[in-house]
Amino acid sequence: MNCKITHYGFDIFNSIQTAASRCGIKRKGDDLALIYFENNATFAAVFTTNKVKAHCVLYDELLLQNQDYIRAVLLNSGNANACNINGALAIKEITKALARDLGIKENEVFVSQTGIIGEEFPTKKVLGALPKLKENLGKNTPALARAILTTDKVEKVISMECEFADMLFHIGGVAKGAGMIHPNMATMLSFFATDVSLSQNMLQKALKEAVDKSFNRISVDGDMSTNDTVLIASTNEVGDLIDEENEFYRYFVDKLTECCIYLAKEIVKDGEGATKFCEVMVFGADSDDDAQKVARSVANSLLVKTAIFGRDPNWGRIIAAVGYSGANVDPNKLEILIGTSVVYSWGKPKEYDKIALLEYVRNSDVIKIYINLNIGGSNFNLYFSDLTHEYVKINAQYHT
Amino acid sequence: MNCKITHYGFDIFNSIQTAASRCGIKRKGDDLALIYFENNATFAAVFTTNKVKAHCVLYDELLLQNQDYIRAVLLNSGNANACNINGALAIKEITKALARDLGIKENEVFVSQTGIIGEEFPTKKVLGALPKLKENLGKNTPALARAILTTDKVEKVISMECEFADMLFHIGGVAKGAGMIHPNMATMLSFFATDVSLSQNMLQKALKEAVDKSFNRISVDGDMSTNDTVLIASTNEVGDLIDEENEFYRYFVDKLTECCIYLAKEIVKDGEGATKFCEVMVFGADSDDDAQKVARSVANSLLVKTAIFGRDPNWGRIIAAVGYSGANVDPNKLEILIGTSVVYSWGKPKEYDKIALLEYVRNSDVIKIYINLNIGGSNFNLYFSDLTHEYVKINAQYHT
Repeated sequence: MNCKITHYGFDIFNSIQTAASRCGIKRKGDDLALIYFENNATFAAVFTTNKVKAHCVLYDELLLQNQDYIRAVLLNSGNANACNINGALAIKEITKALARDLGIKENEVFVSQTGIIGEEFPTKKVLGALPKLKENLGKNTPALARAILTTDKVEKVISMECEFADMLFHIGGVAKGAGMIHPNMATMLSFFATDVSLSQNMLQKALKEAVDKSFNRISVDGDMSTNDTVLIASTNEVGDLIDEENEFYRYFVDKLTECCIYLAKEIVKDGEGATKFCEVMVFGADSDDDAQKVARSVANSLLVKTAIFGRDPNWGRIIAAVGYSGANVDPNKLEILIGTSVVYSWGKPKEYDKIALLEYVRNSDVIKIYINLNIGGSNFNLYFSDLTHEYVKINAQYHT
Repeated sequence: MNCKITHYGFDIFNSIQTAASRCGIKRKGDDLALIYFENNATFAAVFTTNKVKAHCVLYDELLLQNQDYIRAVLLNSGNANACNINGALAIKEITKALARDLGIKENEVFVSQTGIIGEEFPTKKVLGALPKLKENLGKNTPALARAILTTDKVEKVISMECEFADMLFHIGGVAKGAGMIHPNMATMLSFFATDVSLSQNMLQKALKEAVDKSFNRISVDGDMSTNDTVLIASTNEVGDLIDEENEFYRYFVDKLTECCIYLAKEIVKDGEGATKFCEVMVFGADSDDDAQKVARSVANSLLVKTAIFGRDPNWGRIIAAVGYSGANVDPNKLEILIGTSVVYSWGKPKEYDKIALLEYVRNSDVIKIYINLNIGGSNFNLYFSDLTHEYVKINAQYHT
């Protein structure tokens, strides 16, 4: 059971083509992209839990209810197509035009959008750029990954070639992240393809599990967008159709989870203004819910985030965040480690090597915070970033 | 029923004296303060709901259970006396010494502390400064208000002289705020005195109501400290003892609430790095809890806070925060106003005068955001500040 990680994204599949082009929504660069499946691709997706949903999310949710395969994914950045007047109509128009251009049906197009909320959707710009987009189809995953960025800087691409029982299978994906990355849902855009043959139900189940262990465990600023979507589509070219939890399914889910975790971490690293990648691991909580509450409370604490930006191992702020998390906490049983330094144990501060801890906070690529509540058996981990001047600058300047 | 607002704090009372001095915990300035009551003062207090509590909070909670009056309040800044080893002993030592110096009993001293968490408490420094502190006793409220500041810049003092049924009564108070101001509890230090004669039960009830309408409705960064305390003490010099909810009680609670709201607003205005004072008002929610959830979600959204710092009326970020608040929200019924501009109404963006709204966001002293969910009858309001470079700077530099 070998597995090779590469960064070709969708280019690893023979029957999938991608394209990017510029339609003029963003001030510069490509802002329109396309994934095209030569054959029907079974699909599954998870969406934002925000009660206010973008038009593309409302459209895709319906599509997922009524349809078990797609042929294309149309993407744009710069306009979220949310809370505006013409959004639903715009999606009708652009999917119709794209379907005609590609010779597929309207209801075989999945749509994802990201950008500013509340602006009229520039349908004409998109329609005008569709011919060019079709023309550009080819092995263009990096260009596609760039075209969906907004305030993030680096394209995020992964691919995997794996072996299971003499079968070679593949997973490829891209993601877009940056601000508005909230722990409590797949809060960004990410698109995956595989050639493993799965029923729509099993594909949905696999995606849900992988997302819960990856994109649902990251936080940049605690906000959650109206557009967050994770999609997976399968070309069904490898193996017998999986329609129950067999060994191959388990192996596939593990590998898909690995891909998701990789992209989730890349999103945190490329978080708006982030200078440090951090992980908080909570152990010994009364319940899964409590473990999660403590992790989110620490990861979302502005005081913890700014302390890490200041390269200060300020465990007092960590303890305060544990205390107000709402979880069942006994201060006298609490243990906290930063890296390998025990800073607090069973209700008491510990002597530790201050120089070594400072070195760790300053120079380590990853800051790990371990919190043991010592009252139960539940655990949870969360990836997050620090809060910096750059974050404030980006978000004070990203104007409507 | 006249009422005059002044800013003398405790200096408005003949039988109360205050003092401040330097004991050397902070790098500079006074860091020790005292309120001294010439006679027994009935007291009541509310404390942080953080599960991790400073030693002073644990001590005061016990005091409140066992004692109905106090004679002194000892305050220090620079060290929170939380999560350390010698904290409980330190309080024993400093209250004992102060009681001896003042000729009162140990269990007549209330203690409040603020500063860095997790450091050994410098008992000797405090003990050494107590004689000087006693010597300084007099009409010194401004000095006391300054001595309890940490990262906040302006002392916050209020006093009121009011008339009720030919009786003249007084309320005086001070507060300390800045970072760690969380909506969900009295998360700062504030101390009040009055001469109205109330039983301890009624005093506690009055304080709880006033705090719920003021200090529990403010937010700077969403963090909640281990030390937050609001105290009130009465010299019992005016009126017959109030031991039920009569007319005088209602009037007193209203006036106390006014004092609390004034100081709560001052805390937000002096929030770490704050450049704008904001208020979010939520109407038409399904329940009080939902109204509160929406208000907190908007007030704690980093994207909303940075947009306000950028003077950008970015209502898309407000809607997103409403949507992920967890409250029952129907996007099609949602209405949002910024100042007097209706930006969103019943699920649709509205045309508004962009220049006028920009003017408002740039030049108005107070930014008001009205959110009507249009699904129920519950309301909630919350005061908050923007998120700025200065906030990040202060909190990245405030080292352990």
